[in-house]
Amino acid sequence: MNDRRLTEQVRIVGSGLLGASIGLGLSARGVDVIVDDASPSTRGLAIAYGAGRAPAPDDAPGLIVVAVPPDVTADIVAAELERYPEALVTDVASVKLAPLEQLRARGADLSRYLGTHPMAGRERGGAVSARADLFVGRPWIVAGHDGISYRRAAAIEDLILDLGAVPIEMDAADHDRSVALVSHAPQLVASLLAARLRGGSAAALGLSGQGLRDTTRIASSNPALWVQILGANAAEVAEVLRPLRDDLDAVIAALDDPEAPASRRIIADTLAAGNDGVSRIPGKHGQDGRFTALVVKIDDKPGELARLLTEIGEEGVNMEDLRLEHSPETKVGFAEISVVPEAAHPLATALEQRGWTLMEAER
Amino acid sequence: MNDRRLTEQVRIVGSGLLGASIGLGLSARGVDVIVDDASPSTRGLAIAYGAGRAPAPDDAPGLIVVAVPPDVTADIVAAELERYPEALVTDVASVKLAPLEQLRARGADLSRYLGTHPMAGRERGGAVSARADLFVGRPWIVAGHDGISYRRAAAIEDLILDLGAVPIEMDAADHDRSVALVSHAPQLVASLLAARLRGGSAAALGLSGQGLRDTTRIASSNPALWVQILGANAAEVAEVLRPLRDDLDAVIAALDDPEAPASRRIIADTLAAGNDGVSRIPGKHGQDGRFTALVVKIDDKPGELARLLTEIGEEGVNMEDLRLEHSPETKVGFAEISVVPEAAHPLATALEQRGWTLMEAER
Repeated sequence: MNDRRLTEQVRIVGSGLLGASIGLGLSARGVDVIVDDASPSTRGLAIAYGAGRAPAPDDAPGLIVVAVPPDVTADIVAAELERYPEALVTDVASVKLAPLEQLRARGADLSRYLGTHPMAGRERGGAVSARADLFVGRPWIVAGHDGISYRRAAAIEDLILDLGAVPIEMDAADHDRSVALVSHAPQLVASLLAARLRGGSAAALGLSGQGLRDTTRIASSNPALWVQILGANAAEVAEVLRPLRDDLDAVIAALDDPEAPASRRIIADTLAAGNDGVSRIPGKHGQDGRFTALVVKIDDKPGELARLLTEIGEEGVNMEDLRLEHSPETKVGFAEISVVPEAAHPLATALEQRGWTLMEAER
Repeated sequence: MNDRRLTEQVRIVGSGLLGASIGLGLSARGVDVIVDDASPSTRGLAIAYGAGRAPAPDDAPGLIVVAVPPDVTADIVAAELERYPEALVTDVASVKLAPLEQLRARGADLSRYLGTHPMAGRERGGAVSARADLFVGRPWIVAGHDGISYRRAAAIEDLILDLGAVPIEMDAADHDRSVALVSHAPQLVASLLAARLRGGSAAALGLSGQGLRDTTRIASSNPALWVQILGANAAEVAEVLRPLRDDLDAVIAALDDPEAPASRRIIADTLAAGNDGVSRIPGKHGQDGRFTALVVKIDDKPGELARLLTEIGEEGVNMEDLRLEHSPETKVGFAEISVVPEAAHPLATALEQRGWTLMEAER
């Protein structure tokens, strides 16, 4: 098996959003992509969109990508390993431990299997939503295990790099636990919080600030997609939510007796624990995210923000982050600009000289 | 009493962040501002920062602003009503029903009292953090009641307008219930979720995406400040959190038995309820927020975003919102631009002709 030949012919099983997007991306790079799917009409759609060609009797794929729902991933991976005894097989399911254990239990050839998980997706599924650039700049987890050689694993990482994504190595159990913490549990918590808004008056909702918007934004995600994801990683998600529920019980009990000193301590500890937790999220480019924020008032007319950013560029300052804030029922907006601390004061002075109104950061 | 004279002399009791900011804002408009505080040193600091002058024996304020912690608000308001029998008195505490009921119970002259609540604040408290522009463009709730005349209420609304804020009328009970829903409960939920991150591995945190960042951002708020706010509105906050806890219990039970059809339905219903809730948050300028998003790839070098926004302006398109997204461990960024639906396709075409890479929205 010549590893450098692996990606000359790639077979993709399952032609939904991820499978079709991988097919589009590889086809664009000149790879001979074979698209297969249990549903001939779904397969036909992906082929019509340019994801690849139909299977042929003499296919000899070096690499097979299984892109099917988590609950059937192990079955399909096992079948592909048997059907193409020379091929490497990967899958892209959002849960990694269960397929690996199921394959090990049935005695599949793990020396040719390596599970992966691209941290990319879209609101809508299906080949019609597929894009060759879906993975550009996104983390793509490689769930390494001892049964596969370094050289074969490297071939799968090459595929990931070819699609513009960033391979990140992590074992299957760590993967499942990690995405439960940073993605799956937050999704459910956002949904549970947003669900409360159904009962609010229009006047109450009219007071919504940026905090509520941010806290609930991902609650607009597609339920059908997330039912699958959460079901496949249910145990790990529950492990995150159970202590959260215990903390919530304590908070509610404290709110029911707010004058008690113990109650104030519970609320204060909860807020402090939140401070500690959020400080662990890495900032831009993996840095610690300790930038200084300047808040600039922006009139709500075309071109104002562009003018501001152009003038920041003229001052030679690199903006690390930008947020816009709207206030309800007003025509004034605010741009929060993050810069390295040493640039903050000179930039503030320069912008004020240019006529901008600075408000300072408020959080 | 001549209402138009009211704001010529304003007395502010309590010279923390809000009191001192109101003093700065009114002083800048030429109002004779008297600053008082139970602590002479705190008062001295606010005066040194320009919030106003010290009290004098012949003071005759037309309007008094009580800016003290919620638990002493009613006491101070009652004392001021007695001490200045011609003056209108307002307060700015973050809870509105308890002070009103306490004042009513002690027979205070409610015809001269109207509680308000500016929806503005900063991470740090105290006069040193005060700013004249703290309230610009922010909602400022006026908790109207039947005991005060329209004309007197209008005088207090004038004060709010003078400070650049937007008066919003809402009765005291509605206020407390509303801010519990859109501000206080979300704060606790964000803190409870962020607290889970303390136990995550660095590798797990390295997978943090924009969803987690948004969901937990307000968890970095000041615990000391929020203990006061949550304690003052404890009952209403608990009313929001209790059904959330019940829903969370059901979700955890469903995750513990993920294969059961009832479990899938519970998860799906939770996610759908979140969709419904988040759709009730008004968009920019109180509109429904139904904009179309375009995602444009941005190289991480100075001036790229400014160039993009300038070119959007050249196309004559008004940008309704802008978000930046970072992907970990990559030098590529994405700008998500929201525009009215009819502008989306022509703008996308124009930007692609200008050489930009469009990725389409992913949520």
